[in-house]
Amino acid sequence: MDSTYKNILIKAYKNINSFKDEGQLATYIPELANVDPSMFGVHMTKIDGSNFGAGDYLEKFSIQSIAKVLTLTLAYKIIGEDLWKRIDVEPSGTKFDSLLLLETYKGIPRNPFVNSGAIVICDILISLLDNAKEEFLDFIRDISDLPDLTYSDKIADSEKKTGYKNVALCNFLKSFGNIKNEPDDVLDFYFDICSLEMTCQQLSQTFTFLANKGVKISDGKKVISKNKTKRINALMLTCGFYDESGEFAFRVGLPGKSGVGGGIVALYPDNYSIAVWSPQLNKHGNSYKGMELLENVTTHSELSIF
Amino acid sequence: MDSTYKNILIKAYKNINSFKDEGQLATYIPELANVDPSMFGVHMTKIDGSNFGAGDYLEKFSIQSIAKVLTLTLAYKIIGEDLWKRIDVEPSGTKFDSLLLLETYKGIPRNPFVNSGAIVICDILISLLDNAKEEFLDFIRDISDLPDLTYSDKIADSEKKTGYKNVALCNFLKSFGNIKNEPDDVLDFYFDICSLEMTCQQLSQTFTFLANKGVKISDGKKVISKNKTKRINALMLTCGFYDESGEFAFRVGLPGKSGVGGGIVALYPDNYSIAVWSPQLNKHGNSYKGMELLENVTTHSELSIF
Amino acid sequence: MDSTYKNILIKAYKNINSFKDEGQLATYIPELANVDPSMFGVHMTKIDGSNFGAGDYLEKFSIQSIAKVLTLTLAYKIIGEDLWKRIDVEPSGTKFDSLLLLETYKGIPRNPFVNSGAIVICDILISLLDNAKEEFLDFIRDISDLPDLTYSDKIADSEKKTGYKNVALCNFLKSFGNIKNEPDDVLDFYFDICSLEMTCQQLSQTFTFLANKGVKISDGKKVISKNKTKRINALMLTCGFYDESGEFAFRVGLPGKSGVGGGIVALYPDNYSIAVWSPQLNKHGNSYKGMELLENVTTHSELSIF
Amino acid sequence: MDSTYKNILIKAYKNINSFKDEGQLATYIPELANVDPSMFGVHMTKIDGSNFGAGDYLEKFSIQSIAKVLTLTLAYKIIGEDLWKRIDVEPSGTKFDSLLLLETYKGIPRNPFVNSGAIVICDILISLLDNAKEEFLDFIRDISDLPDLTYSDKIADSEKKTGYKNVALCNFLKSFGNIKNEPDDVLDFYFDICSLEMTCQQLSQTFTFLANKGVKISDGKKVISKNKTKRINALMLTCGFYDESGEFAFRVGLPGKSGVGGGIVALYPDNYSIAVWSPQLNKHGNSYKGMELLENVTTHSELSIF
Repeated sequence: MDSTYKNILIKAYKNINSFKDEGQLATYIPELANVDPSMFGVHMTKIDGSNFGAGDYLEKFSIQSIAKVLTLTLAYKIIGEDLWKRIDVEPSGTKFDSLLLLETYKGIPRNPFVNSGAIVICDILISLLDNAKEEFLDFIRDISDLPDLTYSDKIADSEKKTGYKNVALCNFLKSFGNIKNEPDDVLDFYFDICSLEMTCQQLSQTFTFLANKGVKISDGKKVISKNKTKRINALMLTCGFYDESGEFAFRVGLPGKSGVGGGIVALYPDNYSIAVWSPQLNKHGNSYKGMELLENVTTHSELSIF
Repeated sequence: MDSTYKNILIKAYKNINSFKDEGQLATYIPELANVDPSMFGVHMTKIDGSNFGAGDYLEKFSIQSIAKVLTLTLAYKIIGEDLWKRIDVEPSGTKFDSLLLLETYKGIPRNPFVNSGAIVICDILISLLDNAKEEFLDFIRDISDLPDLTYSDKIADSEKKTGYKNVALCNFLKSFGNIKNEPDDVLDFYFDICSLEMTCQQLSQTFTFLANKGVKISDGKKVISKNKTKRINALMLTCGFYDESGEFAFRVGLPGKSGVGGGIVALYPDNYSIAVWSPQLNKHGNSYKGMELLENVTTHSELSIF
Repeated sequence: MDSTYKNILIKAYKNINSFKDEGQLATYIPELANVDPSMFGVHMTKIDGSNFGAGDYLEKFSIQSIAKVLTLTLAYKIIGEDLWKRIDVEPSGTKFDSLLLLETYKGIPRNPFVNSGAIVICDILISLLDNAKEEFLDFIRDISDLPDLTYSDKIADSEKKTGYKNVALCNFLKSFGNIKNEPDDVLDFYFDICSLEMTCQQLSQTFTFLANKGVKISDGKKVISKNKTKRINALMLTCGFYDESGEFAFRVGLPGKSGVGGGIVALYPDNYSIAVWSPQLNKHGNSYKGMELLENVTTHSELSIF
Repeated sequence: MDSTYKNILIKAYKNINSFKDEGQLATYIPELANVDPSMFGVHMTKIDGSNFGAGDYLEKFSIQSIAKVLTLTLAYKIIGEDLWKRIDVEPSGTKFDSLLLLETYKGIPRNPFVNSGAIVICDILISLLDNAKEEFLDFIRDISDLPDLTYSDKIADSEKKTGYKNVALCNFLKSFGNIKNEPDDVLDFYFDICSLEMTCQQLSQTFTFLANKGVKISDGKKVISKNKTKRINALMLTCGFYDESGEFAFRVGLPGKSGVGGGIVALYPDNYSIAVWSPQLNKHGNSYKGMELLENVTTHSELSIF
C-alpha cells in the first residue's frame, strides 16, 4: 500500500492508542464480557488489493451487527426492491433495540440495521433459501475468499440464553404479520449471523466489494449491482450507527457499520474499506476508540465523501 | 458547461416534466397556495463556474427551509463547535415540526434542520449579531454575489399570521431555557429567513461554496472552513429531508435540503451544486418532481457520493 | 331481590336489547370469533344474597381479562404492598397490549390490568405457589362456591397459537428483569387464567366479596382485607377499561373490569355485584351493549359511587 | 360538626404535622416560591353545613389548578355534552403540561384537568361569555357565597412572565384548530383563573355543591345537574392528580383535585368536602402532606367511595 495511507494509519493508531479509553465492555451478552478490553487493531484494504494493518488486526472478534450488512446484501441481491415493502430506509432516531417505533409504524422496521429490521431480513432469507444458515455462510465465504469463516456457537448460545429483547422484537413483528416463519427459527438464524467472527483484516477484505461498485476485487465477479451498492452505502451512512448515525457522518463522513463486539467497518467508495476493533463501547453502543481512530484518519487524509 | 451534464439535465427534465405530478401544493402557509403548481425548473452550477438551466429556472420562489443551511453556516462560522451544546446532529425520524422529541431530549433539537433546531440557530444569531436580519442578508448577498436577495414581507407576514406551531415550538424551547431572547423576536427573524426568494439559478449559485470545500468560486474567498463544510454536508445528507432523509440518501445519494416552497438544493462535493423547483409536495413535505428529477440525474450520471 | 332493582334491570335489558349492536366480535383470538354474536345476558347479586338475571345469563363465556382481578386478589392477599414494587397503579392512557409505556417506565407495568401487569402478576404467583394453576383454581372455586369452575383448553390453546404480542410483552418484561420465571411458563399460566369460563350468574356471584368489604357473603369468610378491597376497587375504577377507563367512570361511575370475550363485571360497594355479557366489542375492546346497559342501570337507579 | 369527624381530623392533622416534609416548594412560578413552606391547614364542610378546621386553615393561598374544576363546571353547565367534542375524559398517564399526547390525539386534550384541557375550557368560556373574567368571578362568588373572591394580579403576572410552556400548549392547540380565540386572550384568562386565592375554609365551602348532587347547601339552589355532578366527580377521581391520579384513588379513594400552590380539595359524595393546604410538593406536583393527611382521614374514618 502506498506510504501516505500507511503513515496516516500508523499515526492515527499510535495517537488513539495512547488515549484513555472512555468506553465500557458490552455486558448484555455475557460471552462478550470475557474479551480482553485492551485489544485494538485496524486494517485497511484498498480496491487495488494493497492492504495494511496495525495493532491487533489479526485477532478474531465477534462482528455482531456488522453482519447485518451482509444479510441485507444477500436478501437485496435476491429479491430486489420488493424488500422495501417490509422494511423502511429511514434513520430511527432511537436505540438499536427500541420497540417504540415499531408500534408507531405498525410492524415496519425503520431500516435494515436496527435489530427489528435485521430480524425481518433473516425471516426473508429463511423463506428464500433452502438452508439459510448454510447458504449465507457460503455467500460470505465466497465474497470474502475466506472459506473458513463460520459462526461461533459459544457466542450464539450465550445470546440465545439472554436475548429476551430480541425474542420480544421478533414476536412483536410476528403479531403485525411481518414475520412469516416461526419466531424461534428466525431468532435462531439471527443469533447465528450475529455470532460471526472475523479479524480486522478479514473484515476489511470482505467489505471491499461495497467500495468497488459491488464487484469483488480478487476476481472481478459482481456481488451486487452498482445501483444497489450505492443504496446499501447510503443506508450505512444514514443508519449504520443507531442513534449516533448523524454523529458518525458528522465526524467521520463515511458509510459504515458498527457492532457491539467493538468492531466498525467503513468504506470510502472507489478507494478503500477499513475495519477497526476495540471492544470498549461508548454509551450509544459503538466502539469508543474505533470512532476516534476513524475520525482521525478521515481528518488527516482529508478524504471523506463530503 | 460540458455537454454530458447538459444532456443528462435536459433528458431528466423532459422525462420528469411528462410525469403526472402526484404532489400537492403546501397549504399551511396561505401565501404558498397561490403559486402556479405547474412551475418546474432546474439549474446546475459546476465549481468551474459553468452552469446550465432548464424550464422555469429564472422564476423566483420562496426557498423556505433551504435558508436553514445558510443560517447554520453563519452561526457555525462564528461560534464553531460550541453550537452543538444547544443542538444535536442526529436525524429526527419524525415530522419537521414535531414537538415529541423535544420533550424526550429536554429542549435540545435533534438537528439544525428541524424547525426547532433552526429556531435555536436564529436565537443564537440574534445574540451574536447587532442586527441579525440585516447582517444575515449581507452575508448571503456576499456569498452569492447577488446584492438584491431579500426577504418577502408578503410570505413572512402570511406565516406570522398562521405559524402557531412554530410559536409553540419556540415557547417550548424557551421553557427548557434553550432560547435566550424574547420568543417574539426570535420568531420574527425565523419567519423572515424562511421568506427568502430565489430562482433556481440563484440558489445553485449561492450554494456552490458547499460543493467547493467552503470556498466561493467567483473570488476564491473562504466562506467557511473545509472541515465545517464537510460537516454541514454530512448534516444535509442525514437530516436534510426530515423523515424522508433516508429515502433521499437512498434514491439520490447527495447531501441536499428541501423547502415547503417546493425547492431542493443538492451538492456533489468537488463537482456541482444543483437547484430544482416544483411546488407540489409529496406527503413528507418534499417536492415530488424535484426528488424524481434528482434521482434521475444521479442515476444517469452515475455520480453520487456513494 | 327487591322489585325496584329487578324492574330497573328488566327495563334496561329490554331497552338495550332493542339497540342495533355497533360492536364487533373480537377476532384476534380465533376461538372467540366462533361465539354467537347475539348473546346478551345480565345478572346482579346483592350482598344480602338476593339475585336476579335477564337474557342469556346462564350461558358460559370466556371471561378473559376479568380474571386479572382474581389473580391480583390472590397475589395481593399473599404478598401485600410489596406487590407495588413491580407494578404501578396508574392508568396507562394506552391500548391494553401497548409496549410503549413499558419502555418509558423501564419494565414496570403501569397497572395490574394492562396485559404486561397481569403477566407480572402471573409470574409472582408462580414464584409464590407450588402449583400456580391448581392453586389459583382452588382459590376461585373457594371464593365463588363454584367447585366446577375451570380453564378452557380450547380457548387457551387458541390464544397460545396466536398470542405473539403477549409473548413479546413477556420477553420484553424479562429483558428488564421484571419476570423471574421462564417466559414460556409464565405465558402458559397467563393464557390459562384468561381462558376461564363463567356465566353472568357465576361471575356476579364470584365478585360479591369486592362489594362486601372483602368478605364472602355465603359464609362470612374474609377473602381479603377491607383496605385491600378498597384499593382493588379503586384500581378497577381508574384502570379497568384500558384507554376507555375514564369513559366508563364518566358514564357508569362504578369500579369494573371488562374482557375481550364481551363480559363486564361492576361493583357498587356495600350493595351489589353485576355481570353483563354481550360479545360484540367497541373499538376500545369493551362490550358495546355491556357498557350501554350498565350506564342505563346506574342512571336510572341513581346509584353510582359519585 | 359531630365529634367523630372532628377527632379524626384533629388526630390526622397532628399526626401528619409531626412528619418530616419530603416535598419541595414549586419553583416554576417565581411568586409561589415566596410562600412560607411550613404552612399546613385543613378544613372540612359537611353538607349539613357543619364544619371544622385545623392549623392554618384561614390563610389564603393560590389555588392554581383547583380552579380548573370550577371553569369546567361553568362551561359544562352552559354547553353540556358538546363540550366533549373538544376534550376527552381519559387519564393522560403523563405530566400535567406534557405536549406528547396532544400530538398523538391531534389537538384533543386527554381531559379537562391537564393544562391543555383547561386552556381549551378557557377558550370555550371566552366564546360563550361577554366578559369571561368577570362572569367567571360572579359565578364562583355566587356558588361559594363569598363575594370577595378574586384573582391575584401578583401571581397571574408572575406566571404570565414565565409560563412559556403554557404559551406553547395554547399555540399548539391553536395549530390543530382547537382554540377559536386569540392565544394571548385565552392565556390571559387562563393565568387569571389559576391565580385565584382562597383559604382552606373557603375552598371546602365552595366545593360543597359537588358533594351535594350539584346543589348549594346554603340556599338549595341548583348549580349543576345531578348527572353532570356525578361526571365531574368521576373526572376528578380518574384525572385530578395528573400522573398520580391512580395513586390518589388507590390511597385516598375520593374524587379530588390538586394545585401546584399545595392545595387539594376532595369530596365524599353525599357527605362532605375537605380542603387541605401544605405548599411543599412531591415529585408529581401534588402536596406531600396534603396527600398524607387525606389518606390518614379516609383510612381512619373508613369512609371512601370504594
